[in-house]
Amino acid sequence: MERNLYLKNTPVDEAREMYLAALQRSGVAPTSECVAAEQSLHRITWQAVYAKYSSPLFNAAAMDGIAVRAAMTKGASETQPLILRPGQDYCVVDTGDPVRPPFDAVIMAEDLIQQDDGTLAITAAAAPWQHMRPIGEDIVAGEMLLPSCHAIRPIDIGVLLSGGILQLEVYRRPRVAIFPTGSEIIEPTETPHEGDIIESNSRMFEAMVCECGGEPTRFAPLPDDFQLLKQKVSEAVAQFDCVIVNAGSSAGTEDYTVHVLRELGEVVVHGVAIKPGKPVILAVVQGKPVIGLPGYPVSAYIGFENFVAPVLSLFTGEPPRQNRMVEAVLSKRLVSSLKHREYVRVKVGRVNDRIVAAPLARGAGAAMSLVRADGFCVIPQHSEGIEAGETVDVELYRNLDEIDRTVVAIGSHDLILDLIADLMPNRYPGEHLSSTHVGSMAGLMALQRGEAHIAPTHLLDEETGEYNLSYLRRLFQEPMALIKGVGRIQGLMVKKGNPLQICGIEDLVRCRYVNRQRGAGTRVLFDHLLKQKGIAPEQIDGYEREATTHMAVAAAVQSDSADAGMGVLSAARAMGLDFIAIGPEEYDFAIPGAFLDLPHIQHFIAVLRSEEFHRRLDELGGYSYTRSGEVIPISRE
Amino acid sequence: MERNLYLKNTPVDEAREMYLAALQRSGVAPTSECVAAEQSLHRITWQAVYAKYSSPLFNAAAMDGIAVRAAMTKGASETQPLILRPGQDYCVVDTGDPVRPPFDAVIMAEDLIQQDDGTLAITAAAAPWQHMRPIGEDIVAGEMLLPSCHAIRPIDIGVLLSGGILQLEVYRRPRVAIFPTGSEIIEPTETPHEGDIIESNSRMFEAMVCECGGEPTRFAPLPDDFQLLKQKVSEAVAQFDCVIVNAGSSAGTEDYTVHVLRELGEVVVHGVAIKPGKPVILAVVQGKPVIGLPGYPVSAYIGFENFVAPVLSLFTGEPPRQNRMVEAVLSKRLVSSLKHREYVRVKVGRVNDRIVAAPLARGAGAAMSLVRADGFCVIPQHSEGIEAGETVDVELYRNLDEIDRTVVAIGSHDLILDLIADLMPNRYPGEHLSSTHVGSMAGLMALQRGEAHIAPTHLLDEETGEYNLSYLRRLFQEPMALIKGVGRIQGLMVKKGNPLQICGIEDLVRCRYVNRQRGAGTRVLFDHLLKQKGIAPEQIDGYEREATTHMAVAAAVQSDSADAGMGVLSAARAMGLDFIAIGPEEYDFAIPGAFLDLPHIQHFIAVLRSEEFHRRLDELGGYSYTRSGEVIPISRE
Repeated sequence: MERNLYLKNTPVDEAREMYLAALQRSGVAPTSECVAAEQSLHRITWQAVYAKYSSPLFNAAAMDGIAVRAAMTKGASETQPLILRPGQDYCVVDTGDPVRPPFDAVIMAEDLIQQDDGTLAITAAAAPWQHMRPIGEDIVAGEMLLPSCHAIRPIDIGVLLSGGILQLEVYRRPRVAIFPTGSEIIEPTETPHEGDIIESNSRMFEAMVCECGGEPTRFAPLPDDFQLLKQKVSEAVAQFDCVIVNAGSSAGTEDYTVHVLRELGEVVVHGVAIKPGKPVILAVVQGKPVIGLPGYPVSAYIGFENFVAPVLSLFTGEPPRQNRMVEAVLSKRLVSSLKHREYVRVKVGRVNDRIVAAPLARGAGAAMSLVRADGFCVIPQHSEGIEAGETVDVELYRNLDEIDRTVVAIGSHDLILDLIADLMPNRYPGEHLSSTHVGSMAGLMALQRGEAHIAPTHLLDEETGEYNLSYLRRLFQEPMALIKGVGRIQGLMVKKGNPLQICGIEDLVRCRYVNRQRGAGTRVLFDHLLKQKGIAPEQIDGYEREATTHMAVAAAVQSDSADAGMGVLSAARAMGLDFIAIGPEEYDFAIPGAFLDLPHIQHFIAVLRSEEFHRRLDELGGYSYTRSGEVIPISRE
Repeated sequence: MERNLYLKNTPVDEAREMYLAALQRSGVAPTSECVAAEQSLHRITWQAVYAKYSSPLFNAAAMDGIAVRAAMTKGASETQPLILRPGQDYCVVDTGDPVRPPFDAVIMAEDLIQQDDGTLAITAAAAPWQHMRPIGEDIVAGEMLLPSCHAIRPIDIGVLLSGGILQLEVYRRPRVAIFPTGSEIIEPTETPHEGDIIESNSRMFEAMVCECGGEPTRFAPLPDDFQLLKQKVSEAVAQFDCVIVNAGSSAGTEDYTVHVLRELGEVVVHGVAIKPGKPVILAVVQGKPVIGLPGYPVSAYIGFENFVAPVLSLFTGEPPRQNRMVEAVLSKRLVSSLKHREYVRVKVGRVNDRIVAAPLARGAGAAMSLVRADGFCVIPQHSEGIEAGETVDVELYRNLDEIDRTVVAIGSHDLILDLIADLMPNRYPGEHLSSTHVGSMAGLMALQRGEAHIAPTHLLDEETGEYNLSYLRRLFQEPMALIKGVGRIQGLMVKKGNPLQICGIEDLVRCRYVNRQRGAGTRVLFDHLLKQKGIAPEQIDGYEREATTHMAVAAAVQSDSADAGMGVLSAARAMGLDFIAIGPEEYDFAIPGAFLDLPHIQHFIAVLRSEEFHRRLDELGGYSYTRSGEVIPISRE
């Protein structure tokens, strides 16, 4: 099998238009089906729906009371009450009862005077048709109830049934076949071994197809076998409206797909100028769309949004869902190649009336970046990138109201941030903590630029031995405060049983180390300790290897790609590692004084002080919380 | 059975708070259940979910190429290429393959030089860990994948499975029992007779429960039988989380419900200061919420939104959905009693950068007003009403983007407006026609106040015999245009076979007439014809009886609550009536010149000119369309 190393680089919009046009030329078009009105929630009307019955079906009383002939009540007044005889002059009606000729008006029960002899008297004339709901007041038979292309809501179901419509024609949902492929993928129920990749994309596609108004059918993973894939795709196009072939992560698989599709039909586009997601295949086989999506989760997701969703909307009668766009200030420089339109996932928050977007991990494999994202921004093709502080258009995944109630944290990483992020929406529905991990110093810089509410920080002042306070005094002009976080223990994480018998910093010269990124408080501490011991960075094997969280360091040690790394006790525990304590430190939150009164900041502080938080810290282990949530104003020197 | 004529009038928010507090005192609280991750779309996490596996599970190649030891590549350069021996110096890797010690870096295939002897050469050193995805780069085992109270999206399903999570705990959906009651209601499948009411509310509630994240069970309608209802409710509270009892339209039924609930448990609130929707019953039976909702569709809907939705959110882990609020200018005065908070349905459009809200029918039975509504505004309790031109807060049912692309029509009614409303979104997805029927003159007034884009109008100038043009010249200062609509035939609608042998206006003095509302073009024409014939309005039985559309007039004649009414041929045909033609008239659209360039106005004109529109007019009958869509600028006199 030859390799397709050189894909084309078709611009996104051009690729989509070419493909949609090719599909329409091939006769791809929506079709309809009949559904019961009571089963039609969220379906899309195929044509206008007209009422069969009027509602009300008859002239009905709109009040409890009596039905009368309006003409005969003329002249009734306080001074000359009119006596009404039952049967011939009136009949009693409840709300909703029919009012039949010759009666043409209703008098409310409250306006009737009960006479001693059992007759009724009235003291005012009735206007014709008063307190009546005339036939067809709400719905007239033959009237249009719903237009075509209308997404049916609960109230529409009520009106359809009242109008005598039991069944209606709606857009048929497109049936979508999903084929995961690749010899290296295993089902999620299997136990993974080295080299295995757990198949999750096809389940994600299933859910995405549902959200687009389609009906997914997921097939078992196919091994890399040309003839088998060819046979399966041929069978599928006969039964389904659309077929998705998902390459495994290996490069070979995508080649199979494109060759299979070339033999079976026409490949309209192979390779799109989009990052992540370049190796997309857009094909037409027997008049049906067949789409090959790349295997990396973020590429798969972006490929689906850009190409599968618009194809499904050819069938569903609904335009693809549009997320809300907002303008945001970019908090970090984004460099890009000129070759692709790049989709960068961002976290978004409102700080000081500006919406700030902080870029997340950009790799095609960074699925968690999509989970954590509040939206994404696009670096256009032919752009070299975007500078920090520039305004970008962000397409939001979350609603703006939630973003307004989000505490934006940029700075040092600790597991307790996840904990707080979990507790906040629980106690304060709709409020969130959004944190980006760039290290203590970079966090304080972000605060200075007005891009965050708080900066988690643990910076040791080597002169005073004091944590954090002196940095705030030195770096900020504006009034600042420190919200006390937790006390925690830094130390060396080593494999279970400590096989290399590492007892302190000095032992690191004889093992493989994994470091933290520049600017991280833990790295500042490590450099400080190296200096104390008189060890040069060059003596440490792995000093240049950077991980961005405590957990990533722990994972490297646990998997034996390193022998030791520095981090907090809770991370070592979570990964079942041994821990050599180096010493306690203070992990706090720097905050401009002006933000202290924001309701979501007050709630953030309340969470720090809560018993639930302290209980969860005890579970994690290695934390003290005697001062958690204490607010210390920073006095200027 | 005694009647509960005098309900309490508890303010809405107070009633809701009292009830939610009572439920919480009774121990109403959410519970959880386990679901498969791949089945968890849109479910809400019960607790934070932590990864079981890292992703990648091993140090993996991020590129196709070879794995090497970075240390041994030091010194390789363009001038001194380094020769690598297969097996001991490198191994070939595809993207995603494991990279095992001692190898610790990947060199891309593109950077390799194939030597003639089959060995490989490199011309640059490899940095440690380059082109590798270290274990846990995306997900670290033990890391929090999702916080609690999180609504699961497709990408979350992918990440859960990649992180080794096959099952997770989510909020259990509340099970809701729905009991329609009332001896007068019939199932939608039955043929209705006079006095019958088609049961549709329970189906609407079913759909609303689904949208709130609950699981509805609808029971067959119960007759008005105290013991039976008592037994059914007792059984239901044992099995369900919440019970809805829906009174029929008769007043008696609601009394049954409240007495049953008083015997079975505690009625916390009976009667809320809300209009429509006052007779709501909020009860607790054996620790379960039991809610009685009124029978009128709009009351039922508003009662559900205000009381059932918040109760269901006690179970679902999600706050009730909030619609978007916008400020809008009210186009018509709204008078209200001081007694209730009133929910008024409105149509909304953007005209000249202002959002304008036009009130719809206010009756509790006007279900079509909810179908047609773009949102609603609230007249607060203790307010006498709101003046036209005042600003009101509107809660939107539709998104603002669609509202921005809506043509706002206020004026005369014709069936073709429904037709255009059907064709517009079909040809131009996301664009709509919103029309409010107030008659020709009132429509022109609305144009003057800047509350509509177009005014459908058919006003005869008695002096010139010309339609519409002279009114525009006379009434407007600004540049105006007339978009030609259709020619149509006005006439008298009479019962099939014309039993009263009505041949013209003069015959109306001997029958029951149904008139149109003041300001309607058809009424202007009728008054003109009466004057011509020398007939006084007092001579016409039913002159004061007003219907607001052609179809409502036709329905009154068809149901024998009137003998004749004036209207267009298409309405007579739709209701199977005979028609005595009076004469042709011109039904056009007045528009300020400034609006002509709006894209949705251009599309509106394109629809008028389209063959599809003309074909549908032929189906309706009685229309000519030779000039449809022609734009006539109005020259100032």
